[in-house]
Amino acid sequence: MTQQGGRGSRGGAAAGTSALGPGAEFDFIRSILARRTAGPEHGEHVRVGPGDDCAVIAGDGIAVSVDMAVEGVHFRRDWIGAKEIGYRCVAAALSDLAAVAAAPIGVCVALGTPDADRAEFALQVMAGAQDAAAAAGASLLGGDVTRTPGPLMLDVVVLGNAPTPILRSGARSGDSLWVTGELGAAALAVRTWRNGQTPAPAARSAYARPRPRIKEARWLADRRALHALIDLSDGLAGDAAHIAAASGVRIVLDATSIPIHPLLRSTPQAPVGGASSLAISTEEALRLALSGGDDYELCFAAPAGAVEDLAGDFNATFGTPLTRVGTVHEGAGLWLRIADGEVAAADYGGYDHFGGVP
Amino acid sequence: MTQQGGRGSRGGAAAGTSALGPGAEFDFIRSILARRTAGPEHGEHVRVGPGDDCAVIAGDGIAVSVDMAVEGVHFRRDWIGAKEIGYRCVAAALSDLAAVAAAPIGVCVALGTPDADRAEFALQVMAGAQDAAAAAGASLLGGDVTRTPGPLMLDVVVLGNAPTPILRSGARSGDSLWVTGELGAAALAVRTWRNGQTPAPAARSAYARPRPRIKEARWLADRRALHALIDLSDGLAGDAAHIAAASGVRIVLDATSIPIHPLLRSTPQAPVGGASSLAISTEEALRLALSGGDDYELCFAAPAGAVEDLAGDFNATFGTPLTRVGTVHEGAGLWLRIADGEVAAADYGGYDHFGGVP
Repeated sequence: MTQQGGRGSRGGAAAGTSALGPGAEFDFIRSILARRTAGPEHGEHVRVGPGDDCAVIAGDGIAVSVDMAVEGVHFRRDWIGAKEIGYRCVAAALSDLAAVAAAPIGVCVALGTPDADRAEFALQVMAGAQDAAAAAGASLLGGDVTRTPGPLMLDVVVLGNAPTPILRSGARSGDSLWVTGELGAAALAVRTWRNGQTPAPAARSAYARPRPRIKEARWLADRRALHALIDLSDGLAGDAAHIAAASGVRIVLDATSIPIHPLLRSTPQAPVGGASSLAISTEEALRLALSGGDDYELCFAAPAGAVEDLAGDFNATFGTPLTRVGTVHEGAGLWLRIADGEVAAADYGGYDHFGGVP
Repeated sequence: MTQQGGRGSRGGAAAGTSALGPGAEFDFIRSILARRTAGPEHGEHVRVGPGDDCAVIAGDGIAVSVDMAVEGVHFRRDWIGAKEIGYRCVAAALSDLAAVAAAPIGVCVALGTPDADRAEFALQVMAGAQDAAAAAGASLLGGDVTRTPGPLMLDVVVLGNAPTPILRSGARSGDSLWVTGELGAAALAVRTWRNGQTPAPAARSAYARPRPRIKEARWLADRRALHALIDLSDGLAGDAAHIAAASGVRIVLDATSIPIHPLLRSTPQAPVGGASSLAISTEEALRLALSGGDDYELCFAAPAGAVEDLAGDFNATFGTPLTRVGTVHEGAGLWLRIADGEVAAADYGGYDHFGGVP
């Protein structure tokens, strides 16, 4: 899983090494932060520094995050078109605002284009980027353009209002862990492309036009249902591990509770409209749902019993389920309860584009 | 001048095409903005949108800008080292805060690294980036890391406080145009490297460790000396043209007033410490001072007579001169007064990394 999906990672613990989950990419971030030189670590103007989905500026509480996407690493143009590339990159970046329950203000898009792509292709990428911003109610604030001798790349800065940001670090023993939506459809699309086939429209759309759960996060925050929050960019196994590390807790996922996307549960079918289904074992479906990136659903820790009564309203409002997937305990690490007992969830690792074979 | 220096460009006029100066790069930005789809153009939370050095968020007045730098386009590692690459990119980005007279809050750094560069080289780049942030009193807020099959790239987001930002658009007929410092040393370094020689230490330093004029801009703003402000990233000829376009005025530069850096005025000397001077004609020196990017000095329009009495204090405080280089008139465009009369300054064009031969 090194050629797609996961979006790199922000931050790292200000004080050291404990606030990020495991993985080669996060080891690299830890190395960067361990070498921090003199200078303001958390200046008076900084409320939240490195290590969460967004940094937050003091005063009004402006949340900011940056997300770099590179052709051949995060997307491939034989999979999706120019406009979809722009849409996907900006939607993925906006998901970091959802991940702290911020309200979008605007985006800045920096675009590096190979010479051959100027004119129409790059303009289409930017049109898609602007569509995604508009869909979230975010203004295009500015950006940068440059030529590059390398692959197409986008770097998207998102800014939002977060007077009361929800961080990864607030989970407490006794909380329940929940996710929005259903998991694994985008990963299924990637798996299908890799096999030289055409993904089902719903899987393709999950990858090409992800929907950042901005309103959903604020709805939950307004109802005091959120102790800790993250978005699923690198896969539930990877991202829930960040909550565990940042909160200093042990989280146990229940394998039978993971809301696997229906596309992964269905039995193989005849091709429909040119799209082929794939035969997927239950084991493989669970693995895709846990380790596949790009779902951009939310994962959150909530006080025990706080969400059960909200799930119906949530589904009625947003047309998507809330599912309780685990529990929070004293201790450390992320574990997966399967029939045989508990195993380290790292065995189902999150997406780590530094960790694997290119 | 397509392999170095200029840093791409932000924004473009919200309303259309008039707020940016000429150039292929700006034509491309105009095309992007002309295709803007539905969505908030200037939402209630946006005070300054695309088209200036920074966007500014309403409320507290948070300024934000993003600056993408690509190896082989903006820097070369056979010219400067890893730590200098990081320092230079962040200092250049921070210069956009100076360009609206903002006080730095923090930076986010997104780093795309070729596989071969992970470990030490990339860590050194980030150490240099953090040095530049610390030198400006800016916190490292966060960032992103990703691998790339292409060249090393950095994207730097800067955030600052700008309750009363100074924009490009405030120049009025009757104003004088001023610059800080002396121009052309960084361009001389690039020219020297291109010739296969080693630049003088002062020229090398101007390129490798630019000094964003953050305190200088705020000093001038505090004294109400600034009608319009920009930083010199693409060369005086290009950047003053942005002020002319954004302000809807005609600006006339006086060629004999341009503060050409002493290194460009000196006669050729014997190599000192391995560094070679180059024989540079007066014409060539003027061209480098006008069109060479990377000076990161400030250019500003001030009310007539407002700055003359401040120049001595400024020099005593910051150890660098203020020089009156032109005048602002009704009309349009940027012009250069030379012995023969006035010529279009575009003949001395700013750096345009889209416009020339790679």
